[in-house]
Amino acid sequence: MAKDILALNAFAPGAGLPGDLERQVARRRASFGAGSVLFYERPLHLVAARGATVTAADGTTYLDLYNNVPCVGHGHPKVVEAVARQLATLNCHSRYLTDAVTAYAERLLATFPPALSNLVMTCTGSESTDLALRIAAQATGGTGFVVTATAYHGNSRAATEVSPASYKTGGPPAFVRTVPAPDPDRFGADIGSGFAQAVQAAIAALAADGIGFAGLLVDTIFSSDGVFADPPGFLAPAVAAARQAGGLVIADEVQPGFGRTGAGLWGFARHGVVPDIVTLGKPMGNGYPMGGVVTRPDLLAAFTAAFGYFNTFGATPAAAAAGGAVLDVLAEEGLIAHAAEVGGHLRARLADLRACRPALGAARGAGLYLGIDCLDRDGAPDAAGASRLINRLRDRGMLIGAAGPLGHVLKVRPPLCLTASEADRFVDALDACLADAA
Amino acid sequence: MAKDILALNAFAPGAGLPGDLERQVARRRASFGAGSVLFYERPLHLVAARGATVTAADGTTYLDLYNNVPCVGHGHPKVVEAVARQLATLNCHSRYLTDAVTAYAERLLATFPPALSNLVMTCTGSESTDLALRIAAQATGGTGFVVTATAYHGNSRAATEVSPASYKTGGPPAFVRTVPAPDPDRFGADIGSGFAQAVQAAIAALAADGIGFAGLLVDTIFSSDGVFADPPGFLAPAVAAARQAGGLVIADEVQPGFGRTGAGLWGFARHGVVPDIVTLGKPMGNGYPMGGVVTRPDLLAAFTAAFGYFNTFGATPAAAAAGGAVLDVLAEEGLIAHAAEVGGHLRARLADLRACRPALGAARGAGLYLGIDCLDRDGAPDAAGASRLINRLRDRGMLIGAAGPLGHVLKVRPPLCLTASEADRFVDALDACLADAA
Repeated sequence: MAKDILALNAFAPGAGLPGDLERQVARRRASFGAGSVLFYERPLHLVAARGATVTAADGTTYLDLYNNVPCVGHGHPKVVEAVARQLATLNCHSRYLTDAVTAYAERLLATFPPALSNLVMTCTGSESTDLALRIAAQATGGTGFVVTATAYHGNSRAATEVSPASYKTGGPPAFVRTVPAPDPDRFGADIGSGFAQAVQAAIAALAADGIGFAGLLVDTIFSSDGVFADPPGFLAPAVAAARQAGGLVIADEVQPGFGRTGAGLWGFARHGVVPDIVTLGKPMGNGYPMGGVVTRPDLLAAFTAAFGYFNTFGATPAAAAAGGAVLDVLAEEGLIAHAAEVGGHLRARLADLRACRPALGAARGAGLYLGIDCLDRDGAPDAAGASRLINRLRDRGMLIGAAGPLGHVLKVRPPLCLTASEADRFVDALDACLADAA
Repeated sequence: MAKDILALNAFAPGAGLPGDLERQVARRRASFGAGSVLFYERPLHLVAARGATVTAADGTTYLDLYNNVPCVGHGHPKVVEAVARQLATLNCHSRYLTDAVTAYAERLLATFPPALSNLVMTCTGSESTDLALRIAAQATGGTGFVVTATAYHGNSRAATEVSPASYKTGGPPAFVRTVPAPDPDRFGADIGSGFAQAVQAAIAALAADGIGFAGLLVDTIFSSDGVFADPPGFLAPAVAAARQAGGLVIADEVQPGFGRTGAGLWGFARHGVVPDIVTLGKPMGNGYPMGGVVTRPDLLAAFTAAFGYFNTFGATPAAAAAGGAVLDVLAEEGLIAHAAEVGGHLRARLADLRACRPALGAARGAGLYLGIDCLDRDGAPDAAGASRLINRLRDRGMLIGAAGPLGHVLKVRPPLCLTASEADRFVDALDACLADAA
């Protein structure tokens, strides 16, 4: 995988920038070195954010259709107040009992199928993936995992091994096998069967090399692969195939989870499946660093019999306060139904736009997670066109991103509080950018 | 390693508990399953904390001599306000420029030797270890690491592999070799030479098995091994030996860092060495989840040429606000000098106490990190005695922990704001507990 999907829409150092921005970028580069990745041809210097908008240092306000971490909106006062109050009162690790942590765990677990009754609180989606892989390996005795071709599941060493998207040279180790993303262009109408067959073939390839199968790991909306959500239920045959081969199923809910799909809290439920392990991250605390692993008690017990595991910042009262406030706001503001409604409106408007803008493919996705292919005049994927469009949208005050193996998929993933009129403004801006380019 | 060092001083389920506590523990166990580890024979149910004290649900106030995460004190208002203000204003990932992140990185890096000029902000010490291992492996082409026998460096899969203390059965993989902790009882007066020879032997053993040497990884105060700090400088020969063998030196500053040793911010500096990579965690944000890797630009560049690395919650303005406030308070309240002073006072009082209490060994350590051996009547390590003492100290309102390969080392590691009179109260309580036991 020579394509660095983590650097899509990245600033290329060396480009000329206005004086103050040049200085800011140089300072940043001096401290963060080669690890500094910035978005946009002209990096964005932010000073404030609220709801679905962010404000830059020059006073420009942007509509944020990119950031899923602040799922209930940037700086939501209920979340900020809950965290601040808890930080001032008590924030300790989980070897002491605290009411906040006990109550949050019960509340979160109540949203899962009954079999998934245990929670490990972590700090990040990466820590969640890492732990999930270890739990699956311990339970099955296998080391082999199957993931999609452009999957991204986190930044630890173990999480990177199951993230083909993170390799700039070479690719994952032999115990990780990839399958194509569940793309209707590849698998046709019966995506479910085609995807399951690909999973079976990957498991067979592991077996042929003497590698025991531990599990199938999928982001249930296939974000970095380019966003594949439909038809609901297509995941079920692959899940059955993984189980038949003795493996576990890990659902990565870092992207689809907490209501983004507009169809309940969890992406796996849209597919009518119950995973063995679920990983949580990004939107869980609206920006407070927290993640989680939800699994069956027998799997967790097998793991902890072999390894001590403790996460200092994991199950703290402040994290529980943030997580609880997110669940409160999702419910009070009806944000899951809202995501379905505004997402549906957005897809309808994009369908209309597509009729006169051949550079756009059909909008895929669910709720407020959309992937829209960028196409050239021959209808082929157009990554350069996507990059231009993303930068021109920024000039018109709209922030989105890119995804997919080629980087040609426009990624639209706003805070769930985005309004229908804000969605309209985005479609109008997209139309104007495409008109400029035509 | 059959000893689970992460579960020292752990509550043993099945013990009879008062009604309300029994219910709290049952609720906790129902949600967290086998992953639930609680301290003490009677778990502690906390409701508030401030400075170096914590308050339980029954109204009892305890002096906290255990928790190093709230390094400037539980609920320090400056840190709480800084985080709350930033969360309300802007908290975004680091692909946008933000003043808070740029300024914090510069300020933190200014405290390191000039060669260590790049920072990667992570969320936890575990993420920092995991990344440091990958950077070292990429730079050297080796996979082999040398660590101490009861080391603990984090909870990811990669971090666990270099943490013998986390294995309940078996031990680390073949590419990880252990050396004895730098214990004067083992190495005598010339700890530096003895420890370096052990490191050389471990590197030779890796080479004999055809495993390339990537680096030496040490907690510069050897916390989980039982706290070994003296004489300052003893680490230098081992560092030289690792370099001579072509490996890098990783200093884990999660425990000694941010002033705990009372001798500057960093434990490695006490030893007069400059590591290639430094890992940061626990006290960095006084409880706000944050960690970091500080390294040379060439090492970071080699890593990022091979792998995409991005940490969503890592370099956020809220983390920078927390980290900046911690540096402010450390300076404004003179907490490093204070740690040296109160730590010195505590060691002097413990030396006096030891004269009449043969169950105590000499207090080792630096600043406000102390390890005190618990001994039986024959002067042998007494883990059961340490456990009893820790529970009896809790009954007298004092919280400490255990460490070391046998669990017989009393671990004293309070918030750095602990006062001399609070230290006196602890010594008096310890004396009373030992009198009761005599």
